[in-house]
Amino acid sequence: MPARDAPPLQLILDRVYARLRDEVDRGKVADYIPELKHVDPQRLGLSIQMVDGQSFHAGDADTPFSIQSVSKVFTLTLALGKVGDALWRRVGREPSGSAFNSIVQLEYEHGIPRNPLINAGAIVVADVILAGHAPREAIGEIVRFVRFLADDDTITIDPEVARSETATGFRNHALANYMRAFGNLHHDVDKVLGVYFHHCALSLSCRQLARAGAFLANRGRLVGGANSVVSEERARRINALMLTCGHYDGSGDFAFRVGLPGKSGVGGGILAIAPGIASIAVWSPGLNANGNSQLGSRALEMIAREADWSIFSG
Amino acid sequence: MPARDAPPLQLILDRVYARLRDEVDRGKVADYIPELKHVDPQRLGLSIQMVDGQSFHAGDADTPFSIQSVSKVFTLTLALGKVGDALWRRVGREPSGSAFNSIVQLEYEHGIPRNPLINAGAIVVADVILAGHAPREAIGEIVRFVRFLADDDTITIDPEVARSETATGFRNHALANYMRAFGNLHHDVDKVLGVYFHHCALSLSCRQLARAGAFLANRGRLVGGANSVVSEERARRINALMLTCGHYDGSGDFAFRVGLPGKSGVGGGILAIAPGIASIAVWSPGLNANGNSQLGSRALEMIAREADWSIFSG
Amino acid sequence: MPARDAPPLQLILDRVYARLRDEVDRGKVADYIPELKHVDPQRLGLSIQMVDGQSFHAGDADTPFSIQSVSKVFTLTLALGKVGDALWRRVGREPSGSAFNSIVQLEYEHGIPRNPLINAGAIVVADVILAGHAPREAIGEIVRFVRFLADDDTITIDPEVARSETATGFRNHALANYMRAFGNLHHDVDKVLGVYFHHCALSLSCRQLARAGAFLANRGRLVGGANSVVSEERARRINALMLTCGHYDGSGDFAFRVGLPGKSGVGGGILAIAPGIASIAVWSPGLNANGNSQLGSRALEMIAREADWSIFSG
Amino acid sequence: MPARDAPPLQLILDRVYARLRDEVDRGKVADYIPELKHVDPQRLGLSIQMVDGQSFHAGDADTPFSIQSVSKVFTLTLALGKVGDALWRRVGREPSGSAFNSIVQLEYEHGIPRNPLINAGAIVVADVILAGHAPREAIGEIVRFVRFLADDDTITIDPEVARSETATGFRNHALANYMRAFGNLHHDVDKVLGVYFHHCALSLSCRQLARAGAFLANRGRLVGGANSVVSEERARRINALMLTCGHYDGSGDFAFRVGLPGKSGVGGGILAIAPGIASIAVWSPGLNANGNSQLGSRALEMIAREADWSIFSG
Repeated sequence: MPARDAPPLQLILDRVYARLRDEVDRGKVADYIPELKHVDPQRLGLSIQMVDGQSFHAGDADTPFSIQSVSKVFTLTLALGKVGDALWRRVGREPSGSAFNSIVQLEYEHGIPRNPLINAGAIVVADVILAGHAPREAIGEIVRFVRFLADDDTITIDPEVARSETATGFRNHALANYMRAFGNLHHDVDKVLGVYFHHCALSLSCRQLARAGAFLANRGRLVGGANSVVSEERARRINALMLTCGHYDGSGDFAFRVGLPGKSGVGGGILAIAPGIASIAVWSPGLNANGNSQLGSRALEMIAREADWSIFSG
Repeated sequence: MPARDAPPLQLILDRVYARLRDEVDRGKVADYIPELKHVDPQRLGLSIQMVDGQSFHAGDADTPFSIQSVSKVFTLTLALGKVGDALWRRVGREPSGSAFNSIVQLEYEHGIPRNPLINAGAIVVADVILAGHAPREAIGEIVRFVRFLADDDTITIDPEVARSETATGFRNHALANYMRAFGNLHHDVDKVLGVYFHHCALSLSCRQLARAGAFLANRGRLVGGANSVVSEERARRINALMLTCGHYDGSGDFAFRVGLPGKSGVGGGILAIAPGIASIAVWSPGLNANGNSQLGSRALEMIAREADWSIFSG
Repeated sequence: MPARDAPPLQLILDRVYARLRDEVDRGKVADYIPELKHVDPQRLGLSIQMVDGQSFHAGDADTPFSIQSVSKVFTLTLALGKVGDALWRRVGREPSGSAFNSIVQLEYEHGIPRNPLINAGAIVVADVILAGHAPREAIGEIVRFVRFLADDDTITIDPEVARSETATGFRNHALANYMRAFGNLHHDVDKVLGVYFHHCALSLSCRQLARAGAFLANRGRLVGGANSVVSEERARRINALMLTCGHYDGSGDFAFRVGLPGKSGVGGGILAIAPGIASIAVWSPGLNANGNSQLGSRALEMIAREADWSIFSG
Repeated sequence: MPARDAPPLQLILDRVYARLRDEVDRGKVADYIPELKHVDPQRLGLSIQMVDGQSFHAGDADTPFSIQSVSKVFTLTLALGKVGDALWRRVGREPSGSAFNSIVQLEYEHGIPRNPLINAGAIVVADVILAGHAPREAIGEIVRFVRFLADDDTITIDPEVARSETATGFRNHALANYMRAFGNLHHDVDKVLGVYFHHCALSLSCRQLARAGAFLANRGRLVGGANSVVSEERARRINALMLTCGHYDGSGDFAFRVGLPGKSGVGGGILAIAPGIASIAVWSPGLNANGNSQLGSRALEMIAREADWSIFSG
């Protein structure tokens, strides 16, 4: 997948930014988390982190935003490091075929969520990370891990967003209680949700997010360092899960249009991976009908096409 | 995705064949199509068709078998050639999250099947190919197209298998009638199913199947020729659909384990694509719980690992 | 449930007719069966057949109409006479909680329909009545049975309606094929549907329908004769099924408002039973959202209230 | 529905008790509420409260048990007294076609439970009764109401059972949070569930329960007093709901076998109504597959048959 005859990446980012910055149809900012609905819908950030260490940016690439479900990629990585393949006894690896917060599947499949990138699955992952510790410790561990990945100790959680979700996240409370009824949560529901809501409230800029996700493009190794975060096989497998499950019930469409593994969040961010080449982070707060960033998806489609990046081509 | 330090491909195939030929746990041969249940469960065929023209084979690579749903990749290609993106008004592009012959989703989504690689979607594709012609003509067109792709005029349909399915395929009759009730079939149900059951009864050997699918590994072009079957973008998109939807409710697991786009059939065949490198066809009649070839899936996992082929790594 | 201090029944029927004849909001005439959509929506017929032999009528009580699913009460009675409680191995006795033609439940419950008064259940009942005979004979037996119940040899099937449904009843074809896939139809799908579509096309006037159903109000015996059609216990049980399942997903509401067992048809007819007192037939072609006669339901609610008939009061 | 030529009621109860007291197949005591699983499965209580004031008893008719969901009949009555038909904007009146604690339907129907006698519906009813008060006051009001109906001030709530459910009722927490997410609970989830779990923990003997429910058999009036609890029409309608929805996904079967409105609880109690004649309370802790008392259902079937009580016969 080398970029043959493609324009320089900075030029691509600048072009994409120029074409989308004034777009009128930007989707709808998430309003079910009170703190999120005040975000400026005009924001648009674009960052590319190459595995060779170079990086490219456009627009609001340095403005932190709530990464929400994009954080599930990092907690999944952490949980796999703790329990390995034993995780798959409690969470599936299949696309859900339904909305990100659907509870129907849990009833039919006896409390086992379809995959770790939908809400129910990520709540099980939070339960794994909690592992008998206090929520505060588990949250601290997640923050340290993301700072380590991004090589940036300024990254923090937005406490207002975490509090806002704790108070209004009734569906997630329903999902957690439902899995607890099936014995698939091992800790107190409020503690597990405490961890979950806090890691969803991580604030990163596109620059930081692209950097934090770069190990997935780099066969599991940190960019610019000798450190291996995960094995190459595990990096592949996380990418596979992002491709099949990373955009809820829009995952097939994202694979079809963009052709790269990606994970979206209702804060409007998306992290995408061009294996062996780069990680890409985009942010635009307005969402489409599936709950994925509308302009972010379009930006990634344009970047992938212009750079000639697709995992489905040779 | 270059094969770095990997063993020669013939050696890989020979090893895989040696390790699986005497495996006891081979899954269960499909019995709902009467003609298929007489197939010898000990058969195992392996073929690799490189985009540079070389090919490698092991085991029963020259024995024709009923490719069943693998044929959906070819009819999808043909239908896209006829109506282009208009197809997506009648079929979705999302994983189904349910069994290959589920009818539940059709009710909830008003007769629009989730994707063209599950039965309901492929029946709509057959309706598109029928396009007002007699079933015999549509079937002839499909056979000619597959012969052209495989560069092999000996490929035929097994009339006994087609007849057997026509007489017993009650679920497919149900799916077709159901979509007709929603106006999403335009032709007579029996005619559409005539086309569908016949293309599922195509008989190809692994050698022929790998050759027929090679255009998907070769940016849309025939191997060893100047002919372009589809545009590079369309080839990518078909690969994306195979990855997210090609193994029914085992698609996520196949992506996770094998890391390549693939399409399975209940005859025990699987076609997989290593973009830019090769197409791979495997055949072993016993199926796992999701209706995919049990040894075929394992063979592909071993081949991909030993050759270091994965779309999720750089 | 004696009619204490209630006005005379003829007066009640005349009042109800007068109040509803010019009602503007009459619902929507069924259009999915082409032959039915030509029926005059202004029609309104009302008949009461007392167990003591008296009868009362108002409006279009002598105009025959297509009784459609009301016929399921008669075929159920016939099938129970043939196979008794063995029927319940192939059909359930629970309300469906979904639309009259839903196929979802069949998938979850492996081809066993929820009750004999939804389409899928009545198709199994038709399969039982067919019992190895030619469809023509089974249809003849049903017609003779309804003529016997109504003591009226002029009752016939409307062949145009039967033909119209045969050509367009794709959902019923889907349901039948689906149950056949589970082995819950024993005969050829087209033959079973031939019987089903024909008995749905029975034409009766309100007068005839009230008379035909009177055995259910009379402890299983014909009105005005010594003949027992079914045992008292079986009559009770058919009434119980009509109450819990007779109005599809509006059964609870009908029980709540009217308080009598009843069975509706998409032709706009409803048969209701006041046990020990009378059977009531009403007809108005416009349907509500659940597919039940809109004015017919209101007429029955008014009749039951004014006559003080309810099975839920002492 | 007069008892013609039926044996005396005390004789019937004694016979039923004698035939069932040593039955081996008694179902399974509910174990998901820890406090309930210690109940002696050999218990069997039977009581009939006639509308004329007489009462008949057999077995453990004076032992209090946890009435659980039978209490939903009383809270429904109370809520209808508070808000009347406005209740039906928040709860449906249709059988659910699924298990008592299913959450699937809530997703498809946007947080509106199917009826007030399944868990989700009764939680909405508890929200209505709460009406801005403290849970303690709402619980007090419910206890006073049941004491008034039973004319017995010794009736209390078992605090251990209430506490046990509060700590382990994860599914009910899930249902409540889910409806809250749709805006169909107006109060704090924990407060509403506090009311719900406490009224489910009401302890009544069969004698007390039959007395408490007798107003439903007596056209809405207390037995032996001039007081009207509800209008005759409302009593009818509550009976209709009990018949169509009172036994979860076994409601159709109960109507078919017993032929009387009834409401069951997982404590093993059932309240049944013979309109105009009597209310009947039975208790045996073992449950059948649908969560209804196994011997209790059989006892009611025998009593109704021997006394010739059925709402489906004249």
